[in-house]
Amino acid sequence: MAQVTPTPPKGMRDFGPTEMARRQYMFGCIKTQFKRFGFQPLETPAMEKLETLTGKYGEEGDRLIFKVLNSGDFFRSIKGKVDQIEGLDSRKHASLLSEKALKYDLTVPFARYVSQHRHALPLPFRRYQMQPVWRADNPQKGRYREFYQCDADIIGSDSLNHEVELLLLFNEVFLSLGFPQAIVRLNNRKILAGIAEMLGVSDRLIPMTMALDKKDKIGMDGVAKELEERGFSSTEIEGIRDIFSQTSPDLQTLKTLVAGHSTATKGVEELAQILRSVGESGVWELKAELDITLARGLDYYTGAIMEVVIPDSGMGSVAAGGRYDNLTHLFGWEGVSGVGISFGADRLYDLMLQYQLFPENLDAGPDYFFLQFGEEFFPTLLPLVMQLRRKGLQVGFYPEAHTKMAKQMKYADAIRAQRVVMLGPEELAHQQVKVKDMVTGAEQVVDVKTFIDHA
Amino acid sequence: MAQVTPTPPKGMRDFGPTEMARRQYMFGCIKTQFKRFGFQPLETPAMEKLETLTGKYGEEGDRLIFKVLNSGDFFRSIKGKVDQIEGLDSRKHASLLSEKALKYDLTVPFARYVSQHRHALPLPFRRYQMQPVWRADNPQKGRYREFYQCDADIIGSDSLNHEVELLLLFNEVFLSLGFPQAIVRLNNRKILAGIAEMLGVSDRLIPMTMALDKKDKIGMDGVAKELEERGFSSTEIEGIRDIFSQTSPDLQTLKTLVAGHSTATKGVEELAQILRSVGESGVWELKAELDITLARGLDYYTGAIMEVVIPDSGMGSVAAGGRYDNLTHLFGWEGVSGVGISFGADRLYDLMLQYQLFPENLDAGPDYFFLQFGEEFFPTLLPLVMQLRRKGLQVGFYPEAHTKMAKQMKYADAIRAQRVVMLGPEELAHQQVKVKDMVTGAEQVVDVKTFIDHA
Repeated sequence: MAQVTPTPPKGMRDFGPTEMARRQYMFGCIKTQFKRFGFQPLETPAMEKLETLTGKYGEEGDRLIFKVLNSGDFFRSIKGKVDQIEGLDSRKHASLLSEKALKYDLTVPFARYVSQHRHALPLPFRRYQMQPVWRADNPQKGRYREFYQCDADIIGSDSLNHEVELLLLFNEVFLSLGFPQAIVRLNNRKILAGIAEMLGVSDRLIPMTMALDKKDKIGMDGVAKELEERGFSSTEIEGIRDIFSQTSPDLQTLKTLVAGHSTATKGVEELAQILRSVGESGVWELKAELDITLARGLDYYTGAIMEVVIPDSGMGSVAAGGRYDNLTHLFGWEGVSGVGISFGADRLYDLMLQYQLFPENLDAGPDYFFLQFGEEFFPTLLPLVMQLRRKGLQVGFYPEAHTKMAKQMKYADAIRAQRVVMLGPEELAHQQVKVKDMVTGAEQVVDVKTFIDHA
Repeated sequence: MAQVTPTPPKGMRDFGPTEMARRQYMFGCIKTQFKRFGFQPLETPAMEKLETLTGKYGEEGDRLIFKVLNSGDFFRSIKGKVDQIEGLDSRKHASLLSEKALKYDLTVPFARYVSQHRHALPLPFRRYQMQPVWRADNPQKGRYREFYQCDADIIGSDSLNHEVELLLLFNEVFLSLGFPQAIVRLNNRKILAGIAEMLGVSDRLIPMTMALDKKDKIGMDGVAKELEERGFSSTEIEGIRDIFSQTSPDLQTLKTLVAGHSTATKGVEELAQILRSVGESGVWELKAELDITLARGLDYYTGAIMEVVIPDSGMGSVAAGGRYDNLTHLFGWEGVSGVGISFGADRLYDLMLQYQLFPENLDAGPDYFFLQFGEEFFPTLLPLVMQLRRKGLQVGFYPEAHTKMAKQMKYADAIRAQRVVMLGPEELAHQQVKVKDMVTGAEQVVDVKTFIDHA
């Protein structure tokens, strides 16, 4: 029986040369902007202690954490237990078999890192992090079990100027990637909290925002249904419907709407100040849009929340973030405010392909590719190859000495060599090379020295 | 009770800004050379199917593979089994709980990838891959449970010119990192096989080479002892001792030694040809040294084997590789020869620190850092910041508007800002800024326009 060639695990992908060239380009664009804004690089391990991750992403999130089996004789540790423990639960008792897990996002490891190093970090501390994360989610279009996040966070200051910085960062990144039509949706948790207060549902702020967060997907009727299931009264649901039917009021309307409610008013004023500064930057080109239904799933946000969508792309948000107060208290560091954003690299990649935003020839082959005419030419050929490489050029040669020229040319073509260099008997005798431009087809015979000097 | 701040799991590390700056520099040097030699990028997932990895690294290796716990209710799948299966073994029965594992090296995933895509790849195919791998090894100095490998492989050709390419790649990488004293040790599996044949121990080539491989660590007496344990006769051990006591014969001596044994002679001739070509490249500066005891642990090598050491560094090999015929047959692709090398990034990093090979100021702070004199200055300050960033500079500003200058300067110092920019009432009135060089301490007042144009 023929052996079956294994493939990567479900929801995980290889990135071959062409995809890698594009990904390197895209990550490069994002990283360039991170650096210009003074963010410093950080990398944390793929794994964290299980206790570092659990309980941070809600019940749904915990379920999606990939756990790593303990090394050694793990069966021994559960012998006599699997059949005896009353109500043995794979979620509750996972630590019997696993004490480490793959990271689910970059935010919690970041919070763990800054808490651990709090005494050595100048505050505010700006870091960027571009690494894969893992989620045992059901794979579907645009959703993978291994995917990259690109995060930028500023921790240790509650200045609104940091929200301004992150909006400008969105601006610079999306312009440089080629998405001038990107829309930044903005809201503020304080506005949501104030509205909940107005409606007398402050005690159920989280269920309310979680239901609202799905409005894009399930519509206002769906939200109402979910609120009903969560035990909201029909009066409360009517109130929520009324206020949130107008998704994008202007700032003035919003201010009037929440007048007299101090938390919500503060939220509106914060947004006003952020938007004013962004406008004064002299570079702002994206569209900023208030969206009071915007809630973002995560319940650690406390101030501004933001997400970026590409209109008419058929794709949800491609970047998102917000202000969180006290995220690090989970790790024993109290009262520290931060704000951060995350780019969804895989969605961005898919959209860049869809909108043809990758420069052509990112995956072009070597600048020069030498054909081989026989072993006796190799001692002349190899030093030329190395001289060109030392000039920073990408250079290859055909390895076998006795292969027909047609086959060698075919290979040069397949690897997308940009120019082919021929050093045969004729050329060797005159200390020349023949160079063929693989795009135009033009051939040129030049002295070796001239060739190297002008390559 | 005070909460304990979690740390990364044992044997795994965070890389903060300074380490990251150095790592990016080092990886950049290696990647530059990979590209110049025409290697194309590849990335494979962190996880592979368990069956892809097991049985590829020997019993010892299999033990060190980190397995990922199945999602969902994994306890259900072992209910009634843990206490009942006769001889339940965590190694043999791991698949009850796990169907995926973290990759142990980059070679096996590469072999899986090329086997899967064999019909679409122009051969020979050159790829580089720079990714972390994971091993449940006992952590110690220079040995981690998560570490980076940087691999370059050429598959689909048995031309010795590819060994030449990889030696030249070593040359270029180690010179560019600052290790001109690096020594490349060379051997050929064919020589080892030929010697085993001479000594009548061909049937025990692998145990012999595995024992020899430890010669650096345990000495020739230790090797003899291990051979004895593995059932070699004292005559055989004497023969092995005799031949391998002379670690580094010259090519001629070696040729004489194996005269009449065709496999070994072929091995010697291959090395001779490789070394001749390397010498003809015009760039070779490292020292190449024959070492007939060099075996490398992995038993898939079939031709040249090589490793790089930095003499007197107190560290083992920092890079290694060799020729393997038929690695991909594990994945159903037969008769394909390849050759590859791997750089041990973490060991290299440690040595670069030890030898002070990292350029200074890799982790320097922003090119310009603006102090803040009050909110009223922000609308002028922010556009300047953005203009400088658009020139490619790294620029920051102090976020809070009402902080004492001394504190702001202290922060600028802590983040290692290279120049501080002051835009106070005086400067604003005259459309000027004051720029302080943080290295020399020199201050200069310039027109805003001049400042931006010349920044």
